[in-house]
Amino acid sequence: MDEVIADAIGKFVYLYNRDYGVPLDLEIAPGNEIFHHVPEHANQKWFDYINEPGFFRDLGVIPGSQEVIRALHDKYEVYIVSAAMEFRNSLTDKYDWLAEHFPFIGWQNIIFCGNKIVNADIMIDDRIKNFSEFPGRTLLFSSPHNLLLTGYERVTTWHEVGELLL
Amino acid sequence: MDEVIADAIGKFVYLYNRDYGVPLDLEIAPGNEIFHHVPEHANQKWFDYINEPGFFRDLGVIPGSQEVIRALHDKYEVYIVSAAMEFRNSLTDKYDWLAEHFPFIGWQNIIFCGNKIVNADIMIDDRIKNFSEFPGRTLLFSSPHNLLLTGYERVTTWHEVGELLL
Repeated sequence: MDEVIADAIGKFVYLYNRDYGVPLDLEIAPGNEIFHHVPEHANQKWFDYINEPGFFRDLGVIPGSQEVIRALHDKYEVYIVSAAMEFRNSLTDKYDWLAEHFPFIGWQNIIFCGNKIVNADIMIDDRIKNFSEFPGRTLLFSSPHNLLLTGYERVTTWHEVGELLL
Repeated sequence: MDEVIADAIGKFVYLYNRDYGVPLDLEIAPGNEIFHHVPEHANQKWFDYINEPGFFRDLGVIPGSQEVIRALHDKYEVYIVSAAMEFRNSLTDKYDWLAEHFPFIGWQNIIFCGNKIVNADIMIDDRIKNFSEFPGRTLLFSSPHNLLLTGYERVTTWHEVGELLL
């Protein structure tokens, strides 16, 4: 979900702007996480933000994800698999967010987990740790933190995902 | 979780007793679900109960499950995989219940889903629908509703699970 269909970075930037004056148009350098770009005394603050009830409820939608996943849903059996379990308060927020923005994905096809030990053919993800035990095809969805990684089939936008899979 | 490590039936019986006078020592006949044993005008009531916040928070623990899963955890990579996604309000309750009763299972090894499309070697479950696409060994954990089914490797108690797998 985060950084693939849900814009968690945008929410972090908004909150760091509110609390520490970080610019709203902050660009994250390739290979960095958001916390590399905030004042040093605040760089663990993301953990507070992310644990707050409501953090995940109003994230923006990554452009193109709704249209392309809707089309994929007509052709494939699409699952949303989110590493939500690290953050207790994210569970209900993520459930409600999906119901609002991806209502065509039924509860049967939603998975909140830690390790992504799913049995599927294709995985689209921004974190390569989720690929390590996955036997199928992997598509690395570009996000600032993964831009320096090489050796992976990469997609930069949902438009590209559509071109590859539709 | 439900009817394998968490006693959902006991909670249903308690609530039906409170609201409809169903006996607290109700025995569910083989092949039946709880709603087959309540007054006809109340047999959809389980859906209200199960959707209430808190329903899953204080379920009893199925005898032996903590001890045997603790021992399995030392020998195997154990995941708790629950079809929680049907019931929005169950998510946080189930998360908290697991933290209370199975604190040795880390968040990495908890999965809340609809369809159980997990990549594992052994599945212990009371519902055969979860076995249909599972490629590994299956152990049908006895519960009243599944007692008439034949043709499955069956376990009746956690003690039996321990004898088979430890």
